[in-house]
Amino acid sequence: MKDSRLVVGLMTGTSLDGVDAALVEIVGSGLFTRAKLLHFISVPFEPVVREELFKVASGKLISSQTISQLNFLLGILYSEVVFKLCQVAGTDFHDVELIGSHGQTIFHQSEPSLFCGRKIASTLQIGEAAFLAERTGVTTVSDFRPRDMSAGGKGAPLIPYVDYVLFRDPRLGRVLLNVGGIANIPSIPAAAEMHQVKAFDTGPGNMVIDALVRHFTAGEKKFDYRGQVAQSGTVLPAVLNRLLAKDYFSQEPPKSAGREQFGELFVQEFLDDQSSHRFEDLVCTATELTARSIANAIEDFVIPGAHMNQLAVSGGGAQNEFLLERLRALLPQLEVLNCDDLGIPVEAKEAVGFAILANETFNLNAGNLPSATGARHPVVLGKVTYGDNYRSLRGIHPS
Amino acid sequence: MKDSRLVVGLMTGTSLDGVDAALVEIVGSGLFTRAKLLHFISVPFEPVVREELFKVASGKLISSQTISQLNFLLGILYSEVVFKLCQVAGTDFHDVELIGSHGQTIFHQSEPSLFCGRKIASTLQIGEAAFLAERTGVTTVSDFRPRDMSAGGKGAPLIPYVDYVLFRDPRLGRVLLNVGGIANIPSIPAAAEMHQVKAFDTGPGNMVIDALVRHFTAGEKKFDYRGQVAQSGTVLPAVLNRLLAKDYFSQEPPKSAGREQFGELFVQEFLDDQSSHRFEDLVCTATELTARSIANAIEDFVIPGAHMNQLAVSGGGAQNEFLLERLRALLPQLEVLNCDDLGIPVEAKEAVGFAILANETFNLNAGNLPSATGARHPVVLGKVTYGDNYRSLRGIHPS
Repeated sequence: MKDSRLVVGLMTGTSLDGVDAALVEIVGSGLFTRAKLLHFISVPFEPVVREELFKVASGKLISSQTISQLNFLLGILYSEVVFKLCQVAGTDFHDVELIGSHGQTIFHQSEPSLFCGRKIASTLQIGEAAFLAERTGVTTVSDFRPRDMSAGGKGAPLIPYVDYVLFRDPRLGRVLLNVGGIANIPSIPAAAEMHQVKAFDTGPGNMVIDALVRHFTAGEKKFDYRGQVAQSGTVLPAVLNRLLAKDYFSQEPPKSAGREQFGELFVQEFLDDQSSHRFEDLVCTATELTARSIANAIEDFVIPGAHMNQLAVSGGGAQNEFLLERLRALLPQLEVLNCDDLGIPVEAKEAVGFAILANETFNLNAGNLPSATGARHPVVLGKVTYGDNYRSLRGIHPS
Repeated sequence: MKDSRLVVGLMTGTSLDGVDAALVEIVGSGLFTRAKLLHFISVPFEPVVREELFKVASGKLISSQTISQLNFLLGILYSEVVFKLCQVAGTDFHDVELIGSHGQTIFHQSEPSLFCGRKIASTLQIGEAAFLAERTGVTTVSDFRPRDMSAGGKGAPLIPYVDYVLFRDPRLGRVLLNVGGIANIPSIPAAAEMHQVKAFDTGPGNMVIDALVRHFTAGEKKFDYRGQVAQSGTVLPAVLNRLLAKDYFSQEPPKSAGREQFGELFVQEFLDDQSSHRFEDLVCTATELTARSIANAIEDFVIPGAHMNQLAVSGGGAQNEFLLERLRALLPQLEVLNCDDLGIPVEAKEAVGFAILANETFNLNAGNLPSATGARHPVVLGKVTYGDNYRSLRGIHPS
């Protein structure tokens, strides 16, 4: 590609598993961004690091020393992941122009609560960008979420902006379903303006399914591989209908869900009532709950406002074949695709996203989508830490 | 001034008292920087905020939620301090081009210790810059110390760079003594190159004096106003000589001191041994300890390498007239000045410093002094968060 720029995107998810890193070739910026994934790796954290992260992220009592040390340690580990990524990609890391690092979320509260007499919502990502900038020499954008929240947004989701930039289509309306623990649907009408993009959480993604699988296998299995357990079960209609009657599903978007609605308490309720049922049937019912709540949300809240042609699925749930089958059956009017079919592999999507958001910041473009985050207006996201390559960077000229 | 830029510098010190804010008119950058203080205010924290800060900064066990919420809250409070500063200065805040915010240090460990199997030193400042950028619309530089530490420095002291930029003189060698809790001496030979600037901690500044005053007044007084208590006492020579024999004072610089050497344990030792002595004599001895350790350090480690003409005192200790008198007596070869005499009021010096450091970052100039921090090389400090004024900023042009 001509005038392209090599950008590394780094993502560490709330699962605390490790660091996802994408080497991306980007041309242009804003609505004219084109991106090509050159290489992707996922590097697990060492158990001792994961343990500290878990302590900090799970609300346990710690000292500020632990957060401070962990912030610096993660920055060092991130820089090593960049070296590894460049090595396996056969790219000299000096050729990378920019890094976008999401960091590890150790706290996120999008609804304000009273703190020292003020209503405060907040988010905190760690992984000191100074080490990325120093060790790789590459100017780094980090800490994307606070800037959106400072403008009244929820700091999430940020990926719908990337979806809009990469996947909007002049003729096709697209729902870009992301099935993580929670299921989220950015929807992009054909030839949409940015403010026409909607995004909200439909409810549980894999969260309930995974919890049931972990429970019944005593932790041996962590998820329903390809949906095989669900496939072998039968839906329990009484259970399903009772769960689908929960208020969340009928609430008008924008809305966001989390462990508060569909975490342990929800699963416990499920288990307590249904102890006489077979494991397969419970998993099948949980999968059907995910499928129906997504399908209903699309039919109730998306399609009435804009014609949709495709449903492109990403996230862990994109591997659940039974879930995809159920979505196809429930939404016959949509072509159900795997996100891979749009050119970005499912597992790399978020890391690619933060490479693109870094490129936006670097070009002084806003990177949040107020219609998705609820922010009052678009803002240039993140914080810029200069690596030694600032001397040769295109796009920034000191006075 | 022609081509000047209005910059706000914000400093919140380890005393957790409140926010210092300086409105500074800056011309140029780097070695050609000229700065004029237009207005300075100091805004105390509300007790409830101070209490939370104290919890977090004193090593108490807290959850990451507390740090996250406090980070956002401080960012909001900082923005209100900027509004107040501009209001009392009669300046439209839209005319401010840049903010430099040091943030509140809640942890600082410049010596590495083992953490998750690695040797890690770290520092952590909070006070979310996104709120400064959003609410004032002014692009903000924050988080100055980590970038120096990522380059192997101690992340401190950063002010000697500012001292060099503002106070170097073609004909006069200057020692810029800062007497905070700890006493620090950047020294700048006449016509010095940047690498000739030295800076190190000489030992206690006000730390021991203040602790004695608090102890003997049961907390009613917090420091020895103008050195009046010391003035009325007599030095206890046996005590003084025993304290001056401590290893720290004879160690070659660079060296840095803190509560580990001269905090509660040191004061306790002082008190335990000397319970029969008069309060005034103990305070006088502690003041003499500060004066002698400074004078000895200048005679042993500064003057042998470079001719010095002036000693300019800043920090809380600059108000201690008895201390100044003792320094004049002990260093007759130097002209002892108050830092005010060099054009920056003592109390505003650090806030002005972070305005100047922000201006350096904004101009992509390195802002650390490796000879002071121990960094391997100069780096562009801090992180840049864009306010809405990025559209009109001179010095940054998007590609």
